Amino acid sequence: MKTVVVEVSARHIHLSQKDLVKLFGKGFQLSKFKDISQPGEFAAKESLVVKGARDYFPKVRIVGPVRKKTQVELSMTDCYFLGIKPVLQLSGQVRKASQVTLQGPRGQVLAQAIVAQRHLHISREQAKAWKYKTGKKIAIIVKGERAAILDNIIVRVGDYKTHVHLDTDEANAVGLAHNQKVYIYEK
Amino acid sequence: MKTVVVEVSARHIHLSQKDLVKLFGKGFQLSKFKDISQPGEFAAKESLVVKGARDYFPKVRIVGPVRKKTQVELSMTDCYFLGIKPVLQLSGQVRKASQVTLQGPRGQVLAQAIVAQRHLHISREQAKAWKYKTGKKIAIIVKGERAAILDNIIVRVGDYKTHVHLDTDEANAVGLAHNQKVYIYEK
Repeated sequence: MKTVVVEVSARHIHLSQKDLVKLFGKGFQLSKFKDISQPGEFAAKESLVVKGARDYFPKVRIVGPVRKKTQVELSMTDCYFLGIKPVLQLSGQVRKASQVTLQGPRGQVLAQAIVAQRHLHISREQAKAWKYKTGKKIAIIVKGERAAILDNIIVRVGDYKTHVHLDTDEANAVGLAHNQKVYIYEK
Repeated sequence: MKTVVVEVSARHIHLSQKDLVKLFGKGFQLSKFKDISQPGEFAAKESLVVKGARDYFPKVRIVGPVRKKTQVELSMTDCYFLGIKPVLQLSGQVRKASQVTLQGPRGQVLAQAIVAQRHLHISREQAKAWKYKTGKKIAIIVKGERAAILDNIIVRVGDYKTHVHLDTDEANAVGLAHNQKVYIYEK
C-alpha cells in the first residue's frame, strides 16, 4: 500500500512585497526562524495581529518568502473565533475569500483569509510513479482511537516534497500529529 | 440506509454540587439559558473562566443540572491553546484526565478536562430496532468538500434522543454543521 507523510499547518500568513512594506516599512526583509518542508519556504521570525469582526489573534506567524498575493490561512475553528465566514478553498485560488485586518508595527492592511482545502503536494517523480495528476482527488486512512478516512484530498504535482497537508482541525479531529505516516486509500 | 442527526458540542463544563458551591457560593442554583437536546439537560446562563498551564478561556458555558463529578469537555484545539495534554476519553469515564483550574465569582477549583470520544447517543427503542448495544463502534459517512468517514463512534444506549455527538474539531474538519443528517456506514 502507498504511504504518505502528513504535515499539519497551523494558521499562517503569506505576504506580498507591497503589503510587507505597508506593515513593516520600506526596505524591510523577513528573517528566517526555520526552514519548512517545502523547498525555499521558511517560517519567519515576524508575526502579525490578525483581526476579524469579533476577535483577534495577537501573533500569527508569517511564512516567507514574499508571494504575489497576500493570503491568510486559517482553520474553521479560527474563523469562528475571529467572527468571519470560513471559506474553503485551495491555497492560491482566492476568489471569494473572507476579509481580515493584518496589523504590523508600521501599518495595517486588509487581507483575504481562506480555509485551505486538504491537499497532497507531490514531487514530479513520485507523481509519475503513482500516475497522479494535478486535480486528482485521493483519500487517506487514519488509524487509532479517532480512526477515519479523509476524502477529497486534492493532488498538486510540482517541485514539492511529497506530503499531505492538513489544518489543525483536521489533524485534531482524527488524532494525527505532524509528520505521521498514513496509508492512501485505494478506491 | 440508516441516517442520524449530528450534534456539535462546543467546550463546556459539568459541575458537581460541591464545586458549584465553591465557585458560586452557598445556596446558588444554575439558571437555565436554554434546553439542549438530551432530556433534562440545559445550557446554563452561568459560565466560568477555564485556565490551563499556558492560557485561558474567559467564558466557558456550564451545562446543567449538577452531576456527580465535575468534568470539563474540550476539543484538542482547546487543549493546545490552554497548554494542557489532550486526553481522549468517553464522557463520564475520567480516569486519566488533564487538570484545569475553574474560576468562578466566589472561588476556584481544580477540575478534570477531557476530549470526549465521539459517540452515538441512542434511544432504547431505536437501539432495539437497529440491534445496537452500548459499546458497539459505528462509522458515519460525511459528504461534501470535506468528505470523510468518521470511525470509532461509540454507541451508548439509554434515555436519550438519537444523535451523534462530535466536538468542534471533528465537525469543522469534515464541514458538518449542528443538526445536519449523515448516513451510518454499514461495514
